[in-house]
Amino acid sequence: MDLNSDMGEAFGAWQMGDDAAMLKIVTSANIACGFHAGDPAGLLRTLRWAAAEGVAVGAHVGYPDLVGFGRRVIEMEREDLTAAVIYQIGALEALAQVAGTRVTYVKPHGALYNVIAQGGAQAEAVIAALLAHRPRLALMALAGSPLVAQARAAGLAVICEAFADRGYQPDGQLLPRRLPGAVLHDPDLVAARMLRLAREGVIEAVDGTLVKVEAQSICVHGDSPAAVEMAARIRALFLAEGEPLAPVTGGVTSAPAR
Amino acid sequence: MDLNSDMGEAFGAWQMGDDAAMLKIVTSANIACGFHAGDPAGLLRTLRWAAAEGVAVGAHVGYPDLVGFGRRVIEMEREDLTAAVIYQIGALEALAQVAGTRVTYVKPHGALYNVIAQGGAQAEAVIAALLAHRPRLALMALAGSPLVAQARAAGLAVICEAFADRGYQPDGQLLPRRLPGAVLHDPDLVAARMLRLAREGVIEAVDGTLVKVEAQSICVHGDSPAAVEMAARIRALFLAEGEPLAPVTGGVTSAPAR
Amino acid sequence: MDLNSDMGEAFGAWQMGDDAAMLKIVTSANIACGFHAGDPAGLLRTLRWAAAEGVAVGAHVGYPDLVGFGRRVIEMEREDLTAAVIYQIGALEALAQVAGTRVTYVKPHGALYNVIAQGGAQAEAVIAALLAHRPRLALMALAGSPLVAQARAAGLAVICEAFADRGYQPDGQLLPRRLPGAVLHDPDLVAARMLRLAREGVIEAVDGTLVKVEAQSICVHGDSPAAVEMAARIRALFLAEGEPLAPVTGGVTSAPAR
Amino acid sequence: MDLNSDMGEAFGAWQMGDDAAMLKIVTSANIACGFHAGDPAGLLRTLRWAAAEGVAVGAHVGYPDLVGFGRRVIEMEREDLTAAVIYQIGALEALAQVAGTRVTYVKPHGALYNVIAQGGAQAEAVIAALLAHRPRLALMALAGSPLVAQARAAGLAVICEAFADRGYQPDGQLLPRRLPGAVLHDPDLVAARMLRLAREGVIEAVDGTLVKVEAQSICVHGDSPAAVEMAARIRALFLAEGEPLAPVTGGVTSAPAR
Repeated sequence: MDLNSDMGEAFGAWQMGDDAAMLKIVTSANIACGFHAGDPAGLLRTLRWAAAEGVAVGAHVGYPDLVGFGRRVIEMEREDLTAAVIYQIGALEALAQVAGTRVTYVKPHGALYNVIAQGGAQAEAVIAALLAHRPRLALMALAGSPLVAQARAAGLAVICEAFADRGYQPDGQLLPRRLPGAVLHDPDLVAARMLRLAREGVIEAVDGTLVKVEAQSICVHGDSPAAVEMAARIRALFLAEGEPLAPVTGGVTSAPAR
Repeated sequence: MDLNSDMGEAFGAWQMGDDAAMLKIVTSANIACGFHAGDPAGLLRTLRWAAAEGVAVGAHVGYPDLVGFGRRVIEMEREDLTAAVIYQIGALEALAQVAGTRVTYVKPHGALYNVIAQGGAQAEAVIAALLAHRPRLALMALAGSPLVAQARAAGLAVICEAFADRGYQPDGQLLPRRLPGAVLHDPDLVAARMLRLAREGVIEAVDGTLVKVEAQSICVHGDSPAAVEMAARIRALFLAEGEPLAPVTGGVTSAPAR
Repeated sequence: MDLNSDMGEAFGAWQMGDDAAMLKIVTSANIACGFHAGDPAGLLRTLRWAAAEGVAVGAHVGYPDLVGFGRRVIEMEREDLTAAVIYQIGALEALAQVAGTRVTYVKPHGALYNVIAQGGAQAEAVIAALLAHRPRLALMALAGSPLVAQARAAGLAVICEAFADRGYQPDGQLLPRRLPGAVLHDPDLVAARMLRLAREGVIEAVDGTLVKVEAQSICVHGDSPAAVEMAARIRALFLAEGEPLAPVTGGVTSAPAR
Repeated sequence: MDLNSDMGEAFGAWQMGDDAAMLKIVTSANIACGFHAGDPAGLLRTLRWAAAEGVAVGAHVGYPDLVGFGRRVIEMEREDLTAAVIYQIGALEALAQVAGTRVTYVKPHGALYNVIAQGGAQAEAVIAALLAHRPRLALMALAGSPLVAQARAAGLAVICEAFADRGYQPDGQLLPRRLPGAVLHDPDLVAARMLRLAREGVIEAVDGTLVKVEAQSICVHGDSPAAVEMAARIRALFLAEGEPLAPVTGGVTSAPAR
């Protein structure tokens, strides 16, 4: 199983998260590309740390919206979005190469992540960007979302991710944030759920049923000390239980038979 | 001799210059990278035109200053500038690859061009960016400027450029814009001067003396109809006189013996 | 009747429209406020021209989206949008005061205009901004749209505007742009339609029926020579026919009885 | 004596400083205006807190440089800078009015502060902005700098400020940051120095001499817990010693006789 987290989210004088600490915990780093966060020099620093830790690097592409941190849906035209994604990947690739590493996957950020999870024109635009620029790059996508099949049908490798601290519905979808149980806070519970996911491919839904979730990666947060602590607990449990943690190599081009 | 011009300087709804027209005239296109001008979709369009015309592509890197169009000096720290240059080159490389072409040189834009022509910390920062990311990329620099030797000493290939519509001092420097004769407006005169430069390696300075100018490229402007007309006149004269126009391959790593 | 047009849409080195020319034609200028277009020095220039011509000044507030020119819907939170509108109005008010004029109305731009025309949370956010900052400022809104009643119910004066070059449906709504007849190109026809609107309060819809349109202002475009010509034709016809053109003073707080 | 601190320096998702805490300590708040920091909704929040605490509000105007946090010199043209300052003041004035307070002074930020302290074209541009827009606004400036006399000669009221945690040279200038003793870290020492400044108008320079410093305000920092602690220590000492702390009303138009 892969552990991924968002990084490179500082911007100039503004800090966010503790990249150096998280890079000792996770196996994959989703690194901002300058559109929703990340200035070039800060990105280069984080990339150098990622290279030193042997953590895989993904391009965390977002809407061009610093003040909104990429969390607001923008109705971008297809060609604008495709070009914006290519631009961001290329910029991060150059910095990664200088840092002694390379970009192996792409994970859309924030509102873009949510919008394209459901498919549609923006999903097509992002897929088109990868196909045009680097068809071998994997796309990291929400486990169980329409995007997974859409991207695989287009020929992309996909890394499905589960969210460590989120409650699930019986159909495998995330419980909406406004509902009770949507966000989990107990690190031990979260770690145990993720271990079970890694071993059995299931997560206990909010109603107690077990739901199959295809996930090659687990998303953990790093923007608060509590989040870093939770990520560390997952890592510790996996190590203690002998469950391997490693980046996904090349993504997965079709759903594994379970 | 190479003919180069700035392009990709539109930004969203705002147009600038006539890239499609200029790409039928010049042999090298200095294409903005999004920091002083150029949105991703617009850059991709210009890159596709450049690819179709067989025009060489350079990364026209600038200060992060859209409202100032990169024309105002910004006191950037060395590591910030190096990372910003790498970022911009990488972004353009990705778009260029999608457009079916590639970046072969880097030309700093506007105030950055002028600042680093004189050497100093920002020049070192730009040189460091190329060495770290793509040491085989050529740097396009002002003919006769301290930057030329500095970049060559660092191991970079340099493309020296003369300015078609500018007056020269007897020492080979450009006549400052505030002085009479600094900007030339007669297309026939300009074309004749550039033909002589290509054949004899000299330009007639403002005092009538002939000054040696090492130039592998001539910079022409495309931001007004008159500028496009002047560029076309130079091209026409070179073609009529059998003087070849072609991009510089790989830059020039040391001054040619004349 | 008032004639209004968008202005101040240059940004740094990028030009758009011919503000000086349009200010000799219209009676109200919707002036960008820096979020979708307009740099401070350029805005001050346009405001000085507007002051010299005695043209009324409106704050053309938009989404924070330069590269998208404010034409893309952004899902802004209510409090973010309210504060962004207050910020933009205040910035333009200060520049207007220095230019010797003042802001008398607010017209949302582009995608924000379209979104709030239908009411909803963003409409409430814009109305809240005016109420909090300057409840005496009029809101310029699409004639016949839900926003008109919503803003009046909140206590704002509203200036309803018709679009000179657009076809109308029998219900008084604009014909969608994708349908034939949505955009009119004949300046004489357009001018005659607008004169009839001013005199009789009706526009001939696409099916030939006459539809009542409450409009205190007519929106004309200035971003192409043809658009300027059409605006000039409307003005000329009104002057020739003795139909007065003047800014709306204070907006209209309730629908006039016709 | 007045105590001032920089605030409103968050930007969207990025936090900086603890405005709510500092507003319980200082008597004047230099609030960012969106060019180097500060998004509209965040500024409005800080302004509401300032209004609730009865703290005076200054417009902390800066260069248009988010990624550089306004700390890098930008060679802005005079008319661009004047208009940018007017724009920023106006934007903050509108938000302040909505928050139930008003802007009473202007303090340039970061690199702009340092550049204009020495006078010159940018200083003239800033002074021109105040004179054109609000000649009654005071300008907060570095005690002992050429700007003080220049602004007073132009008719502006000036608030001279000393820096609590900085060492001084015998001539009243700040000790450059690279020298030992340039930055003081002992809160008790700093508080005692500032109390003496308030009572006797002198600061002990790095060589032990007493230097006269005309200061109506003391600048404290709030961007770290230690900085907040130091500010609180100054406030506590002043209160304990019966030395009044209050905003400057209207600035000071000429140097007081001491």
